[in-house]
Amino acid sequence: ADKIDLKEQPHRRLNPLTKEWIKVSPHRTKRPWNGQVEKPMLDKKPAFDPACYLCPGNERAGGHKNPDYKGTFVFENDFAALLKDTPQSELNDGLFQAKSERGLCKVICFSPRHDLTISLMNLQEVTAVVKTWQKEFTDLGKLDYINHVQIFENRGSVMGCSNPHPHGQIWAEEIIPDIPATEQKNQKEYLKKNGTSLLTDYVASELEKKERIIFENDSFAALVPFWAVWPFETMILPKRQMRNIIEMNEKESTDLADALKRMGTRFDNLFQTSFPYSMGLHQAPTDGEDHEEWHFHIHYYPPLLRSATVKKFMVGYEMLGMPQRDITAEGSAARLRDCSEEHYTLTIG
Amino acid sequence: ADKIDLKEQPHRRLNPLTKEWIKVSPHRTKRPWNGQVEKPMLDKKPAFDPACYLCPGNERAGGHKNPDYKGTFVFENDFAALLKDTPQSELNDGLFQAKSERGLCKVICFSPRHDLTISLMNLQEVTAVVKTWQKEFTDLGKLDYINHVQIFENRGSVMGCSNPHPHGQIWAEEIIPDIPATEQKNQKEYLKKNGTSLLTDYVASELEKKERIIFENDSFAALVPFWAVWPFETMILPKRQMRNIIEMNEKESTDLADALKRMGTRFDNLFQTSFPYSMGLHQAPTDGEDHEEWHFHIHYYPPLLRSATVKKFMVGYEMLGMPQRDITAEGSAARLRDCSEEHYTLTIG
Ligand SMILES: O=P(O)(O)O[C@H]1O[C@H](CO)[C@@H](O)[C@H](O)[C@H]1O
Ligand SMILES: O=P(O)(O)O[C@H]1O[C@H](CO)[C@@H](O)[C@H](O)[C@H]1O
Repeated sequence: ADKIDLKEQPHRRLNPLTKEWIKVSPHRTKRPWNGQVEKPMLDKKPAFDPACYLCPGNERAGGHKNPDYKGTFVFENDFAALLKDTPQSELNDGLFQAKSERGLCKVICFSPRHDLTISLMNLQEVTAVVKTWQKEFTDLGKLDYINHVQIFENRGSVMGCSNPHPHGQIWAEEIIPDIPATEQKNQKEYLKKNGTSLLTDYVASELEKKERIIFENDSFAALVPFWAVWPFETMILPKRQMRNIIEMNEKESTDLADALKRMGTRFDNLFQTSFPYSMGLHQAPTDGEDHEEWHFHIHYYPPLLRSATVKKFMVGYEMLGMPQRDITAEGSAARLRDCSEEHYTLTIG
Repeated sequence: ADKIDLKEQPHRRLNPLTKEWIKVSPHRTKRPWNGQVEKPMLDKKPAFDPACYLCPGNERAGGHKNPDYKGTFVFENDFAALLKDTPQSELNDGLFQAKSERGLCKVICFSPRHDLTISLMNLQEVTAVVKTWQKEFTDLGKLDYINHVQIFENRGSVMGCSNPHPHGQIWAEEIIPDIPATEQKNQKEYLKKNGTSLLTDYVASELEKKERIIFENDSFAALVPFWAVWPFETMILPKRQMRNIIEMNEKESTDLADALKRMGTRFDNLFQTSFPYSMGLHQAPTDGEDHEEWHFHIHYYPPLLRSATVKKFMVGYEMLGMPQRDITAEGSAARLRDCSEEHYTLTIG
């Protein structure tokens, strides 16, 4: 077969972490858009909102009152999807298979300030978020009924986030969910075959090729993965292999905070809007096994495609067949690389 | 392990077609909602819209003019994601794997009337849609570079549908996309192990259990699958095994049209709105193989959760871990079963 023209030709790319293929239609960018537009996020918010159930001192559901917190603040989700006292039980009846789930859900307020985001917090404040993640991962990982800790953030109403107060979540549970389990399986296979870690090799090779790198610091690289599904999907990867965030030293923890802030700022600057996304960490399970295959990483899944108000819809063909994108990973990386690291709201007043 | 309480206990269920697990949190229905609300669809539309590029006689992109069609109307997508003349080529470089794609994309107008939907068309008109699908499946399946024909419909602006004119799409291509390929693998395994087809057994067993059945006619059953992900996800399944829609006889074709219309009507009546969804057919590939494992079926993936304006967001934990739902499949089936089969716009004038 001939060498492929990734810039012009319809093609598919393989995600080696999940073994899924992604369809890329780079010729399709002239498509007009008459569909749904999103409301752009209002950028002016008060530093304190008396109606916000995450602001310090305010009341939450069920009569809980937030303390007058000054840094990060963690509490158990008042409407947790997982409960710790679920008795073990199952249904095992041919095509009807069900199993009970045990776990717990937490909310992490990143800042007492209602009007901030990771991109607008200072480095010290973002470092405090990283340290909170480390503490939670350590503590939850020690619980005997917790084998996987999923840390994530939903940002923006278009991502189903019901409150703009800067916060993330943790769902910790007994089982390893399907997506990290698949990533683990493929990292294991790769290690067995090559004697090295899949993502350690991947980040090294991207740093050499450069075309999908957005920025780097001493410890981390931010890039649009070759197999990106969402228009501006990115990953943040440590350059050296670490299985989880508690293997980071002090300098690496600050470097991760630096990468988070810079990634957030570039995203906000891309369409001059408070950029919506879901982001989350994939780390080795806390099941007591060694997991030398794991290289921890952060995925960002942002829905916007053309502007602050036009998003990509993963529907129809994507739900029934396979994911599809119109712009290339390389094109998206170039645009994010061109974005400033000074936040637009600070430069245009 | 004890018998599980599927109504009250957090649990996960297995999708035997994909081998994926779905998290169910039935205890979580009291959660308040302060997040994004969708604009309800405007129900009053003109029968002909001079600005609609799908209405008869109007101009499309690139200077094409629609004929003055009276029934269904099929044309090649002016902005196709797949092209037939893509030369075969590939990139085969370790973690960087890409392959060229060949195929073609078509649009099917279901009706000349801009203001109709499947739920509002009469049985004869919906049967014409089924016949058009059959003709396209036959013709496309014969092309030597087409091995898979994906027929689907995106409905509603919340599903990225850019035009309310009743229409669907077909993406036909050389490869079998990941999702039907996975369904095929698991149907094959099941056949090998049990000597019967997975979905033939499944539909028979659901018809016996009854609690997830919404309605049936002589040839088809409509149900909420045990492993539903979306709040009101449903499937339409033929009661006897058929690999694709061209194996249907006349009576079965009309019965499928009947099922499509009744499903659409119940959906619209659920929240008294023109119900958004992606729906599509999964059928045996047209790759010349026998495929005795395949039992064709229709998936409906509708996003609405609580009302015409509040949808379920598959974000954060769902994107990083596994899908999650708050209401049970059995509860959803009961609500759809309670819906009338007379369209609300016809009864409340
Ligand atoms: O082809 P359309 O209607 O322009 O586009 C719509 O359906 C496609 C196929 O499901 C999706 O890829 C697009 O994201 C969606 O907006
Ligand atoms: O937990 P929240 O913020 O109420 O809810 C949000 O995040 C959850 C976890 O990603 C999702 O299941 C919900 O669909 C989403 O609306």
